[in-house]
Amino acid sequence: MTCVWFRATLHLCRLRLASGCGTRRKYDLFSPPVQNGARERTLSALRAVAGDEGVCVGAALREQHGRDESVHRCRPPDVVVFPRCVEEVSALAKICHHHRLPIIPFGTGTGLEGGVGALKGGVCFSLRKMDQVLDLHQEDFDVTVEPGVTRKGLNSYLRDTGLWFPVDPGADASLCGMAATSASGTNAVRYGTMRENVLNLEVVLADGTVFCTAGRGRRPRKTSAGYNLTNLFVGSEGTLGLLTKATLRLYGLPESTVSAVCSFPSVQAAVDSTVQVLQAGVPIARIEFLDDVMIDACNRFNSLSYPIMPTLFLEFHGSSRSLEEQVTITEEITRENSGSDFSWAEDEETRAQLWKARHDAWYAALALRPGCKAYSTDVCVPLSRLPQIIVETKQDLITNNLTGPIAGHVGDGNFHCIMVLNPEDPEEVKRVHEFTERLARRALAMDGTCTGEHGVGLGKRALLREELGPLAMEVMQGLKATLDPKNLMNPGKVL
Amino acid sequence: MTCVWFRATLHLCRLRLASGCGTRRKYDLFSPPVQNGARERTLSALRAVAGDEGVCVGAALREQHGRDESVHRCRPPDVVVFPRCVEEVSALAKICHHHRLPIIPFGTGTGLEGGVGALKGGVCFSLRKMDQVLDLHQEDFDVTVEPGVTRKGLNSYLRDTGLWFPVDPGADASLCGMAATSASGTNAVRYGTMRENVLNLEVVLADGTVFCTAGRGRRPRKTSAGYNLTNLFVGSEGTLGLLTKATLRLYGLPESTVSAVCSFPSVQAAVDSTVQVLQAGVPIARIEFLDDVMIDACNRFNSLSYPIMPTLFLEFHGSSRSLEEQVTITEEITRENSGSDFSWAEDEETRAQLWKARHDAWYAALALRPGCKAYSTDVCVPLSRLPQIIVETKQDLITNNLTGPIAGHVGDGNFHCIMVLNPEDPEEVKRVHEFTERLARRALAMDGTCTGEHGVGLGKRALLREELGPLAMEVMQGLKATLDPKNLMNPGKVL
Repeated sequence: MTCVWFRATLHLCRLRLASGCGTRRKYDLFSPPVQNGARERTLSALRAVAGDEGVCVGAALREQHGRDESVHRCRPPDVVVFPRCVEEVSALAKICHHHRLPIIPFGTGTGLEGGVGALKGGVCFSLRKMDQVLDLHQEDFDVTVEPGVTRKGLNSYLRDTGLWFPVDPGADASLCGMAATSASGTNAVRYGTMRENVLNLEVVLADGTVFCTAGRGRRPRKTSAGYNLTNLFVGSEGTLGLLTKATLRLYGLPESTVSAVCSFPSVQAAVDSTVQVLQAGVPIARIEFLDDVMIDACNRFNSLSYPIMPTLFLEFHGSSRSLEEQVTITEEITRENSGSDFSWAEDEETRAQLWKARHDAWYAALALRPGCKAYSTDVCVPLSRLPQIIVETKQDLITNNLTGPIAGHVGDGNFHCIMVLNPEDPEEVKRVHEFTERLARRALAMDGTCTGEHGVGLGKRALLREELGPLAMEVMQGLKATLDPKNLMNPGKVL
Repeated sequence: MTCVWFRATLHLCRLRLASGCGTRRKYDLFSPPVQNGARERTLSALRAVAGDEGVCVGAALREQHGRDESVHRCRPPDVVVFPRCVEEVSALAKICHHHRLPIIPFGTGTGLEGGVGALKGGVCFSLRKMDQVLDLHQEDFDVTVEPGVTRKGLNSYLRDTGLWFPVDPGADASLCGMAATSASGTNAVRYGTMRENVLNLEVVLADGTVFCTAGRGRRPRKTSAGYNLTNLFVGSEGTLGLLTKATLRLYGLPESTVSAVCSFPSVQAAVDSTVQVLQAGVPIARIEFLDDVMIDACNRFNSLSYPIMPTLFLEFHGSSRSLEEQVTITEEITRENSGSDFSWAEDEETRAQLWKARHDAWYAALALRPGCKAYSTDVCVPLSRLPQIIVETKQDLITNNLTGPIAGHVGDGNFHCIMVLNPEDPEEVKRVHEFTERLARRALAMDGTCTGEHGVGLGKRALLREELGPLAMEVMQGLKATLDPKNLMNPGKVL
């Protein structure tokens, strides 16, 4: 019933540990502890596969791989390996499997739910050396990438092709990491999430078995050939297998793009506008909500001067004619909801500035209370429930004297409170914890989910059980046990 | 390595059986045979749940439930039950589970791959009495339906709401049946397949366990809450569980719709146009290819007079302004590829006539050779490979003197040869069989799939293995064994 990270943080506060990073954990390579001889033999076996420089046991590197961008405590692995190809991933997995060592996949460490912490020690597989774009089929709008390729890396590779990969969670995450957490972000309202944009995955199971979820090299736009294994691994957060290749759908770069900002007298007016724009069938590319607190934070952080009011950041993609129509309909709707005139950003630089403000929301929020840490909530509800849940949540924040500016992909019914807190203050930690649980349950009571795009990781396992019920959880546990009977793949996450 | 139905058909030919329907199978209620007393006790147990009129053992009704629209031989179940609610489905499943009786879900029997045949006898669950639209959330664009609700039934229910469910496989299939086979059809190029349009499913497992894949009542537009169980059951063809509720995404009815027909001097020109229209980013709603043989058949069947040439049927959805733009770009492209002027259908009646011709393709093909049967191939390849595979396939048809008019959802790279054959002629059956295997392997060699939307069913199990490889098949078998350890759910299909 409680969030692991909150419990952990609370524990840390009480112990008044100087460092939030678990470097003081007794160095017990391979749990259960094995003798030094066995430890050395295992390391030798790993080195025989990945080379000396591909197997690291240094504390700094292990710590770097034991945490993501969340407040979850650092849980360093015992070893970090850097495989260079799928054959090495498979061979290393076989060694781990033989020695019953946990396997934790690591992309860029930009996750938000503590997904990379090595709760039971073990071997972190950093996949950053596998960073090739392998097969680009321009005419078919698809590409295959290795797990070290990031979202920005791919789009930079695609620069001269007229194509792009639109799923954009903000961070420059690895694409396989994004597949693992079922990431989405600002463009999902138009282009979908990773669920809709992965055509095939190469997977390495805990025992080293390598297979492709849709068959090797296959990339039809649609298929009904057997169970949808691709979407079983998308969102599995490293608990079922390592993703070593992803075949992705690409899109033509829009002929024209225009962005705009519009402020509203109330949350209700901003969210009502969002719902109405979607109901009117406007194929809007982004529609992002920032509440007054968040806009204020963004203004301060980026020296901007947006009115400190509930605000929508909008983006339209299409031909210039289609843009005109989209904008006209949207302006009509926002005006009817007492929205301000649009403040426009047409050229690429101005648009980049505008979206930088949105993407910097996390850091802008953190800057509200220097020295504090941030945790992002991630509920998602049916569109019609958005105004109510946001209004209630803002009231809850005020009542409980909490700092939690709100930013959200409201076109999908998904929003984040970026909770800024002092992890050394147990009373505040407790209040934030209680708030996030209330918020999640508010979303569940409105037919929604506790996580729209960040995944379950460490902190939402109890909420997941509330959300899905014990029987669906049993089904998930059964699938996990089938694919990873020794429970080696990223143990302690999701389930 | 061979198609079950072809082997079965060949076998039938050789035995010169008068009837294609397996009514001569010894009536061995419940395999392994049980004594009459036990049989009666089991029937009584089923009747105690579903009522006397909800449990049928009459030969005619069993035969009606032992086949779909394919050429696969009728394999009647031992009993047909008609549950009225999920509680009854669960209770009936428990009885089957206790007696180790196969469970075969039945929607409308409009499948094309023999998915409903009771290969090992058992109990057919006809779900047509569960036909209520349960929860319509207009403002959220979603609806929950019972398994007896059909596609047309739902759209008729939605008539005054301004919403519709666009996935359209042609037949008036049940929506849960469409989910079970991962159906798609003519609108998928714009609106996606069942994979993208099911938000949640209520499932009954073989042991009677009832759960919802995304948690009871949940319907957020996106989620990353645990494994994607919804899409594990979509496309599972009744082999993992019975679908007793589906929550579906709805769409706003387009403000305007216009359809057009355009003929081309060559297959290459028609398919090149398709690829270019998509590459230009036109959000076309339907783009359907019919080859000269199919157009000829449609002309005869519906007394039409389209030029007997490779042809595209097109449909555009949007505001009138957006339509104008879509049409202009498309016309430019088709003209550059030597397409004819568009023949237009703007009002609803004319459009209905036009699409009736396309939807009647199956019957038009059958009418080419009265008394024959039809089997539809279903390969799907990356867009750029379409011209080559269609040209090669047409050549193959001619070389082997086969009747196989082609119709296809070319916007998805998916097309069908509707093979019209005399099942009493073993030599022709063999030729068709060899042709379909060559075609499937041609698709596999082009990174495609043997089935874009019809599913695997009975006939494509060997091809599925070739497509996915033994390791992915093992993973699927593992999942099946986890969810249905006694192999009771639609045994003998898919795997």
